[in-house]
Amino acid sequence: MLEKIENFLYEFFKKYNFSGAVLGVSGGVDSAVVLGLLVRVLDKEKIKCFILPERDSPKKAINDAKLVCRHFNVDYEVKNVTKIIRVFGVYRYYPPAFFVPFKIKESFAKKRWNRYKDNSFEYDVLGVDDEEFLKGISYYRIKHRVRMVYLYKEAEKRNFAVVGTTNKTEFLTGLYVKWGDDSTDVEPLLHLYKTQVFELAKVLSIPEKILNKPASPDLIPGLNDEDIFGLDYPTLDRILKKLEENIPIDDEDPNTVEKVRKLYNLGKIRNQIRNISIE
Amino acid sequence: MLEKIENFLYEFFKKYNFSGAVLGVSGGVDSAVVLGLLVRVLDKEKIKCFILPERDSPKKAINDAKLVCRHFNVDYEVKNVTKIIRVFGVYRYYPPAFFVPFKIKESFAKKRWNRYKDNSFEYDVLGVDDEEFLKGISYYRIKHRVRMVYLYKEAEKRNFAVVGTTNKTEFLTGLYVKWGDDSTDVEPLLHLYKTQVFELAKVLSIPEKILNKPASPDLIPGLNDEDIFGLDYPTLDRILKKLEENIPIDDEDPNTVEKVRKLYNLGKIRNQIRNISIE
Repeated sequence: MLEKIENFLYEFFKKYNFSGAVLGVSGGVDSAVVLGLLVRVLDKEKIKCFILPERDSPKKAINDAKLVCRHFNVDYEVKNVTKIIRVFGVYRYYPPAFFVPFKIKESFAKKRWNRYKDNSFEYDVLGVDDEEFLKGISYYRIKHRVRMVYLYKEAEKRNFAVVGTTNKTEFLTGLYVKWGDDSTDVEPLLHLYKTQVFELAKVLSIPEKILNKPASPDLIPGLNDEDIFGLDYPTLDRILKKLEENIPIDDEDPNTVEKVRKLYNLGKIRNQIRNISIE
Repeated sequence: MLEKIENFLYEFFKKYNFSGAVLGVSGGVDSAVVLGLLVRVLDKEKIKCFILPERDSPKKAINDAKLVCRHFNVDYEVKNVTKIIRVFGVYRYYPPAFFVPFKIKESFAKKRWNRYKDNSFEYDVLGVDDEEFLKGISYYRIKHRVRMVYLYKEAEKRNFAVVGTTNKTEFLTGLYVKWGDDSTDVEPLLHLYKTQVFELAKVLSIPEKILNKPASPDLIPGLNDEDIFGLDYPTLDRILKKLEENIPIDDEDPNTVEKVRKLYNLGKIRNQIRNISIE
């Protein structure tokens, strides 16, 4: 698994004439693994990491991201993108965050998300006639898009590639922001389910602290991946793989299968709605 | 041609549950044609146009964009995105524009672009080890990306789709900004060469003024499409179509064919470098 990705990355940089790599490091396991791969393929001066927190980012995530960069001993820059997001005007949707303790922001955001209970992710993908919910969507998606634009700005002035961190579980379920974290030059983890990314993380000796925290898209305070899915990753991946590869599924709990099938179909729709054209 | 696109758009909005359309109007013929199509398919209150000039946009283009929106009698908003681009920090690359007459900005930008003469577009696609040239690239691309992020912000809070204006000539030659003007929900012109878009414009009675001005990507002051290609559109389209459809090409001037083939190959490379992954 490791050698295959190393060769793939090596060939990518050579073939497309990129001088190096720009990577957004979030403090999560995916970007840590991608960095672990990059340092095996490129000289360290050809890797430039960016940590891009904004107003609502938890301090813990920033520290974890720094930990990852230091662990691999690569150059990184922390750039707070709050000012950029502010000029787009989306922070105006919600009460100012100053003086509001993080825990309260968390419960506020979770409550908003859970407005539709198990259907929240469905409405996120399919749309719904509810101004408040839609504002929430517009509010969280802009964060990843601004990060993407920033990473490309930094990459293009160096002739570097923007390296993505999307994994197959995220892709199949649509757990990404269109024209945001999905918009990159190369995706070294796109063929791996999240559970496989964790396996790779062990091989690459990612710090224990990063491995053991719950995965989160860092978009809505306090909301982690498993809150969104309502499932743990091993179960989700096992059933997703069966659906994707048409493997018999009768041995699984029917309710769980239904849940995963719904995510899988939502992901398909989300993946479809891109530059739809005639022919 | 017209009926086919109308049906396509009608089905698109229905199938994906979008409540309306957001369109960036540039004052050029492509966005004018798309607007002409949208008013035939959607009620006018379901169409929201944005004119998004920035520091370097010519006044003429803004006026032309307004002319188009008024011509079709749809709601539009002019939002200057200079402030957003400024916080990204790219304007710092170049001398402040205040007090610099537009003609001088034009010749400055043209000179920079023409640094590599006929190879400028090649280096734009393939990269080059030249900090000044790369800064220019990073500088102009961010403009379309910021516009994209803005249009999505406006679209998502209304459950509207972002409608694109890329045509087949632009797509095949790579004359677009990756994760910028190419990043949309639906592309009603993607199957049409630029010359076909002009034909459609006549059917849709686009104002003469818009039809008769030279096409420009509005990215680098004073630089229009034909400057970039070094070819007129009828010639470019005729030869592109032959290459794309494997039609014999011996009746064409070999030098012109070589020029188009180069653009065609560069376009292919640009279209390839997106989320490259294993398998």
